[in-house]
Amino acid sequence: MSWQEATVPEVPDMRALGRKVRNWGRWGADDERGTTNLITAERVRAASELICTGEMFALGIPLDGDGPQPGGARTNPIRLMSETGQEQVLPGGFKWADDYVFMPLQAGSQYDSLAHVHYDDQLYNGHPGDGVTVKGAGKCGIHTQAGGIAGRGVLLDVARHRGVDWLDAGTAIGPDELEAVAAAQQVEVGAGDILLIRTGWRRKFLADKDAAGFMAGEPGLGLDCASWLRDRDVAVVGSDNWAIEVMPGEHPGSAFELHMVLIRDMGMTLAEMLDFEELAAACAADGRWDFFYAGPPLPFTRGVGSPINPLAIR
Amino acid sequence: MSWQEATVPEVPDMRALGRKVRNWGRWGADDERGTTNLITAERVRAASELICTGEMFALGIPLDGDGPQPGGARTNPIRLMSETGQEQVLPGGFKWADDYVFMPLQAGSQYDSLAHVHYDDQLYNGHPGDGVTVKGAGKCGIHTQAGGIAGRGVLLDVARHRGVDWLDAGTAIGPDELEAVAAAQQVEVGAGDILLIRTGWRRKFLADKDAAGFMAGEPGLGLDCASWLRDRDVAVVGSDNWAIEVMPGEHPGSAFELHMVLIRDMGMTLAEMLDFEELAAACAADGRWDFFYAGPPLPFTRGVGSPINPLAIR
Amino acid sequence: MSWQEATVPEVPDMRALGRKVRNWGRWGADDERGTTNLITAERVRAASELICTGEMFALGIPLDGDGPQPGGARTNPIRLMSETGQEQVLPGGFKWADDYVFMPLQAGSQYDSLAHVHYDDQLYNGHPGDGVTVKGAGKCGIHTQAGGIAGRGVLLDVARHRGVDWLDAGTAIGPDELEAVAAAQQVEVGAGDILLIRTGWRRKFLADKDAAGFMAGEPGLGLDCASWLRDRDVAVVGSDNWAIEVMPGEHPGSAFELHMVLIRDMGMTLAEMLDFEELAAACAADGRWDFFYAGPPLPFTRGVGSPINPLAIR
Amino acid sequence: MSWQEATVPEVPDMRALGRKVRNWGRWGADDERGTTNLITAERVRAASELICTGEMFALGIPLDGDGPQPGGARTNPIRLMSETGQEQVLPGGFKWADDYVFMPLQAGSQYDSLAHVHYDDQLYNGHPGDGVTVKGAGKCGIHTQAGGIAGRGVLLDVARHRGVDWLDAGTAIGPDELEAVAAAQQVEVGAGDILLIRTGWRRKFLADKDAAGFMAGEPGLGLDCASWLRDRDVAVVGSDNWAIEVMPGEHPGSAFELHMVLIRDMGMTLAEMLDFEELAAACAADGRWDFFYAGPPLPFTRGVGSPINPLAIR
Repeated sequence: MSWQEATVPEVPDMRALGRKVRNWGRWGADDERGTTNLITAERVRAASELICTGEMFALGIPLDGDGPQPGGARTNPIRLMSETGQEQVLPGGFKWADDYVFMPLQAGSQYDSLAHVHYDDQLYNGHPGDGVTVKGAGKCGIHTQAGGIAGRGVLLDVARHRGVDWLDAGTAIGPDELEAVAAAQQVEVGAGDILLIRTGWRRKFLADKDAAGFMAGEPGLGLDCASWLRDRDVAVVGSDNWAIEVMPGEHPGSAFELHMVLIRDMGMTLAEMLDFEELAAACAADGRWDFFYAGPPLPFTRGVGSPINPLAIR
Repeated sequence: MSWQEATVPEVPDMRALGRKVRNWGRWGADDERGTTNLITAERVRAASELICTGEMFALGIPLDGDGPQPGGARTNPIRLMSETGQEQVLPGGFKWADDYVFMPLQAGSQYDSLAHVHYDDQLYNGHPGDGVTVKGAGKCGIHTQAGGIAGRGVLLDVARHRGVDWLDAGTAIGPDELEAVAAAQQVEVGAGDILLIRTGWRRKFLADKDAAGFMAGEPGLGLDCASWLRDRDVAVVGSDNWAIEVMPGEHPGSAFELHMVLIRDMGMTLAEMLDFEELAAACAADGRWDFFYAGPPLPFTRGVGSPINPLAIR
Repeated sequence: MSWQEATVPEVPDMRALGRKVRNWGRWGADDERGTTNLITAERVRAASELICTGEMFALGIPLDGDGPQPGGARTNPIRLMSETGQEQVLPGGFKWADDYVFMPLQAGSQYDSLAHVHYDDQLYNGHPGDGVTVKGAGKCGIHTQAGGIAGRGVLLDVARHRGVDWLDAGTAIGPDELEAVAAAQQVEVGAGDILLIRTGWRRKFLADKDAAGFMAGEPGLGLDCASWLRDRDVAVVGSDNWAIEVMPGEHPGSAFELHMVLIRDMGMTLAEMLDFEELAAACAADGRWDFFYAGPPLPFTRGVGSPINPLAIR
Repeated sequence: MSWQEATVPEVPDMRALGRKVRNWGRWGADDERGTTNLITAERVRAASELICTGEMFALGIPLDGDGPQPGGARTNPIRLMSETGQEQVLPGGFKWADDYVFMPLQAGSQYDSLAHVHYDDQLYNGHPGDGVTVKGAGKCGIHTQAGGIAGRGVLLDVARHRGVDWLDAGTAIGPDELEAVAAAQQVEVGAGDILLIRTGWRRKFLADKDAAGFMAGEPGLGLDCASWLRDRDVAVVGSDNWAIEVMPGEHPGSAFELHMVLIRDMGMTLAEMLDFEELAAACAADGRWDFFYAGPPLPFTRGVGSPINPLAIR
């Protein structure tokens, strides 16, 4: 079956799908971490064996005013200097510089905490939705992931497999296509993996610098991928788009259905707006598509997200 | 020799010391990265073999209003919610939350970029001091380290070696004491290492929550350590205090002399305000004091510093 | 009767007092402005006749890092430059400078909007308390006062009347003392007035620069003043302290009872942290204690407060 | 002569014009306030007689995310709640709300301080250009105007005089047209006046909500107006556009020439992005085009600008 056929799945109902893939209670009634529990120490250790040359690839996009946020709900980071050395007269000729930043925690490359989305008054694991208040996430804040996210990373390069620079906005990637890409790359996706999906959407932004276009839609996973991710016990899913899932969504008029199922029902941490350009080129060059991934979030207490700059080490 | 004798060194003159340990030109006239150049791919690969159990320790302190910044030049991070789900009426019952942060890039656990301090009109490698402007670091910004900092980490637990919860403010740690701690821990410090020095200053803050006291002074490295670090070709030095070096400094009335020598002359990236409490306990328990360190900075373009949450993986 | 006797009133019960002085419905069921409705155009016109010499006194305190906010719930304003002229190469040698600020809207001299406090699930005029959300004030936001606050101002200089530099924290000012000061100053407080109460608390801060002390308590109005203000139909009450009312409050363990009665029940806009030092000296010099007051808030849509720099024009 | 002829002046050379209209030294070698010195107490007193009915018009535009800043050098204000009452359990059922703002000081209606622009290394009155540092304005900061700006305001409604909703971007208004409008309105512009020029540019934004279009250009004063303003000793000039002057400028490739002459040479405070819609309608209705103006800036120490909400009182 070609990917063209694969991308026209019958789209499942969101709530039914949520019930099917739900991980509530799996790691205890109090759990706030969800599928990152799948990253056991043993899996981290095993993943360290994927480091063959020590070459590193940083997956975070630059944090500055030229990023992909056109304004509105989120802005690009605004970094301002508080000290440059001007006006300082200090012993020994000491001069120091310092800076502040004002930014949405999800302005660039970032994790969604499990408090980022919910429906029907409940977060992941049944935690109360109204626990997300003006003070932040009562449960499932990003600080609960602060112990670190590292392990086996796998890159599925869908754009390369299709032979395009990038998939168009609105293009859904289905489970069959994920299978086909993995088969072509001769890599398997397994339990506890950090799965990275390259759609080329970052490449498009690098080419056209169109922030409004970047956010207006995107290629991404279809709803049907939720079961596929659940069956493989993937720990984290990341992408070079900004919402993992295809936008506009598969159900006309719907909003962020895969977000709701993955984050709220499965308890999956998402990694968004990553840059896979150099990593993908290196993987394609030697045919090794798995690597050690080290992507610690910043421990913002009760934070809903965190900027990240994950390392892929090969 | 006991550490008591070791901590009364003859304190070198800052500028003479700077000339002695200077790495300018060593990695080319245009280099902006300094000693992190010492972290070669081969050293990263070798360090990966230190991962024995896969157990991870996150070294970043919580980012919230209870941090160690009492106000003044820097404040604790102020994270505010822009969305909680309130007032949202979206398809499928979708609710989303989002947050913004305003923070000094050096509010908590963080790297100093090589643009953070300078003297005599020159940054590291002779880059012009007046290139640090209101727009940020013209050279040596933290984005030049964005490719990632990872490799062999070594923890020297000075407080544990002295048998104290923490060293007092103003206590200088000299090279002989570093040697003595390393010998007692049966660990060697080598080229390209990320060297972490535990003074107990974080433990003190956890005990007394005294932000003003945390910043008023600190135990830390004496000036004489610069040569020792240079001789061993250490790549990064980190600590649980906020300035690596002893405060007040060894020369009466001086200011941040070790900062100037390490950052501006040696080109060394500093990692400050880390939390080694759990890591040190684990190291002490099994006597292994080296580990894989993965601490990517956030790629703030022209930024002077970056918050971090490094992972120590054993 | 001396003021010493006057300041030991029987303290009324907050909820009973609230019911007694309530202005709900007085200006219509939809009203969001409360007592500033009392400032009619005719009263503004009449107040303009108080301008005798044209001398102006600005009542706003400086907005910078040396202000009275020690951190915690509020910080002092942090103003940072985004442009100074550095790195600019523009036609004609044009150089421009620009700045950003991050600040609590109630960091310095400011108005409390009627959405600032509430109890028993209702704001002023019965507007729902849960209409104050993460997006701001659903009703009674400061923008509803944006049309401007100007009119007759009257200064009652309690500290001067007592012959002290400042009243101590915890000192309650009762209605009898307000009467006594007004009588001594030969000034009457009338309908639609902006009433300013000088306690000397600003002078204390100017003397000792103790931000923590400034916020730890304050002299101010006792609960009994609510009826007095209501009987005279005062439009706005302002002070040189930060909460108008005496802190700690008169009922042991209570919190901001006068705030609740004035703002929520009476619908009164409060003006806090003003500086009356020069104005009071001028008033004392010629015995004229009323003047034209012009203190427009900034029109922050749905804002809870606004910084101000009101003018008293004599 | 009709205004059509008047708007094709011979455009003066900026530096020659600057020398001609310069006010340096006029109010002393140390002066930092420039033409607001012209607002004497007697002029304020006289202006108070313009208050006939007490009707007030607030000229500040709303401060929120829907303002005219499309991003880039400046953003719209971002106001975020720090407290809403959620999670509070306080005595007496007390609930309180609070908010923070992050904003460019020139995001909406605002004054340019005299430190906002300069050329040839000098600010107004010869103050050094390099005194504008990362810490702010060494001289001529907005705090030097904090004593207040109030006095006689005059509105010249150019759009109404032309019979258009708004002038197109790039349309220069010359001194002859200002004369013609004043004559038609039967109002004189005099010494110490706050002169307000209505171009309709605010009306255009209200009609099309096009922030990028608002900032891409504008109708405004031509360079030749500088002499006219200087001859009349106008104290402050304000407009409903964002830069007072016509954009693009009259000299091809030039940048902000009138800004440089007015601010740097004449020492004139500018008031930008005001809303005259309701005020102009009232003035047109009864033919009175002068009024009492009260527009205090916020006293940001060393600030380059300040948001304002001036009152016009008729």
